[in-house]
Amino acid sequence: MANKEPLIITDKDEMRKWSRSARAQGKSIGLVPTMGYLHEGHLSLIQQSHIHTNLTVVSIYVNPGQFSPNEDLSTYPSDFQGDIQKLKSIPGGVDVVFHPHNLYDYGKNEGFVKNSEHEEGGKIVSCVENSGIGHETWVKIERLENGLCGKSRPVFFRGVATIVTKLFNIVDPDVAVFGKKDYQQWRIIQRMVRDLDFGIKVIGAELVRDDDGLAKSSRNVHLSPEEREKALSISKSLYNAKFAAENGQVDCKELRDTVIRAIQEAGGKVDYAEIVEQESLESMKEIKRPAVFCIAAWFGKVRLLDNMEINV
Amino acid sequence: MANKEPLIITDKDEMRKWSRSARAQGKSIGLVPTMGYLHEGHLSLIQQSHIHTNLTVVSIYVNPGQFSPNEDLSTYPSDFQGDIQKLKSIPGGVDVVFHPHNLYDYGKNEGFVKNSEHEEGGKIVSCVENSGIGHETWVKIERLENGLCGKSRPVFFRGVATIVTKLFNIVDPDVAVFGKKDYQQWRIIQRMVRDLDFGIKVIGAELVRDDDGLAKSSRNVHLSPEEREKALSISKSLYNAKFAAENGQVDCKELRDTVIRAIQEAGGKVDYAEIVEQESLESMKEIKRPAVFCIAAWFGKVRLLDNMEINV
Repeated sequence: MANKEPLIITDKDEMRKWSRSARAQGKSIGLVPTMGYLHEGHLSLIQQSHIHTNLTVVSIYVNPGQFSPNEDLSTYPSDFQGDIQKLKSIPGGVDVVFHPHNLYDYGKNEGFVKNSEHEEGGKIVSCVENSGIGHETWVKIERLENGLCGKSRPVFFRGVATIVTKLFNIVDPDVAVFGKKDYQQWRIIQRMVRDLDFGIKVIGAELVRDDDGLAKSSRNVHLSPEEREKALSISKSLYNAKFAAENGQVDCKELRDTVIRAIQEAGGKVDYAEIVEQESLESMKEIKRPAVFCIAAWFGKVRLLDNMEINV
Repeated sequence: MANKEPLIITDKDEMRKWSRSARAQGKSIGLVPTMGYLHEGHLSLIQQSHIHTNLTVVSIYVNPGQFSPNEDLSTYPSDFQGDIQKLKSIPGGVDVVFHPHNLYDYGKNEGFVKNSEHEEGGKIVSCVENSGIGHETWVKIERLENGLCGKSRPVFFRGVATIVTKLFNIVDPDVAVFGKKDYQQWRIIQRMVRDLDFGIKVIGAELVRDDDGLAKSSRNVHLSPEEREKALSISKSLYNAKFAAENGQVDCKELRDTVIRAIQEAGGKVDYAEIVEQESLESMKEIKRPAVFCIAAWFGKVRLLDNMEINV
């Protein structure tokens, strides 16, 4: 199949114009928001967009609003030319890559506030926190954003919801695709779309695994071969838990303890291992209705996410 | 001029459909969000919409999200049939009245939480605060929403920003008109539109006064003739302050003290009287750049708002 050259748009007004024009021609638009450094997981999201829409926009933007000043915004991996090559090589390609330089208005000030000078009084700040007439509007999904990843990353979901709102308003898609690997993020975006009445269908694309079972992630490249081998304890123990639950072991404490022990014995450090309701993400004591087992664990310097839906 | 009969739409999907169809015909859409009980101030907003767009949608919806459980949601005045008559009688009329029954999703629960059972631990709640999978997404304009009216009404602007976001997403207008009588609200919506990249032009319509100088408001009907006479102290003292400032009296404390004294001497109770920057709404000590003098004051049981821009 011939490679399809995507149109690269960096300006938000140009992006809007493209969308309006596409709509005027009766085309439907799918949006796949990414932070770049694409892997097969991302490509599966694009396939979902192809199924549901005429045209596909992939955004590549490392969003400073979802990083705390003490997180790794400045070292987040990027490979824009490599991303474009990957996008060209997938069947059907993509129509537009939206790659803005910056999407925040800093008012009269320039650049980011990257240090923690504004963290006084326990106020939660991100890398775009600013003063004066700079950016100050945040979308908060008050309950869903608290648990799981929200505990160790307090500005993360506020930043995600805000940038996704901005992208929705600029790209104006009919469909947006998110990966269920970031399960909490997917549920948060679904809730936000319902609560704010966006006219957008949110699609959750299934988690993609390597042949050995490891959930695909940009961060996997940072694992040494030994760490990678050990990290398989996450997916293995999740599969075991799913099997056990579907065969009558529905006590969440038992299930969690078993998984945590398996990961720890492999040398991992568990950030969280929670069994929660699929929609409200509230903790469960016994699996009596559809649940999802969510895990974040460190192997070496890499924090890995994984999850498994359990439908008893 | 013949009366124009507006189309009344109560369903949000039908509203979306109407907007998409209008856009497909190349028409531009203006939105005037209201809570009903229309007066000449509202009608001046509609005139602004006529100037800037082909079609005008007026929304009439008393938004529970901007009321605290201890505020007067249940007694907020309404007169839908009277509103429709007024809209028919104005030159050019309006094209659509969007009048939804309810715009919030309460999940599995029904109805509002109107008591204060969730106000534990100092958590700020509104009349749509809910649990489980009910509405939980709020748009917050973190600095602008704090001062002035935000002090005495802590959920107000969060509720306004959220419902305006919902209306923007449902109606998808090109232009939205807000009254500068609610100066802080107007600035908040402007900031939100910038920060969240809505493709919407926000127009601030000038405050409209009665012949005697009182700012027009739905609430004025609740004033007795004596209270109304006394309430003129607000606009009179604001005009005096503006005149004084433009003639060299730029000390904000002096100006504020004079206005507060005049209102108190007339029998009013001042909620706030602040001189702030026009865009950031930050307090000023001296008027050296464009300012706005904002007042909220009680006469009897009526809380009145007024403001005056001072461009030295």
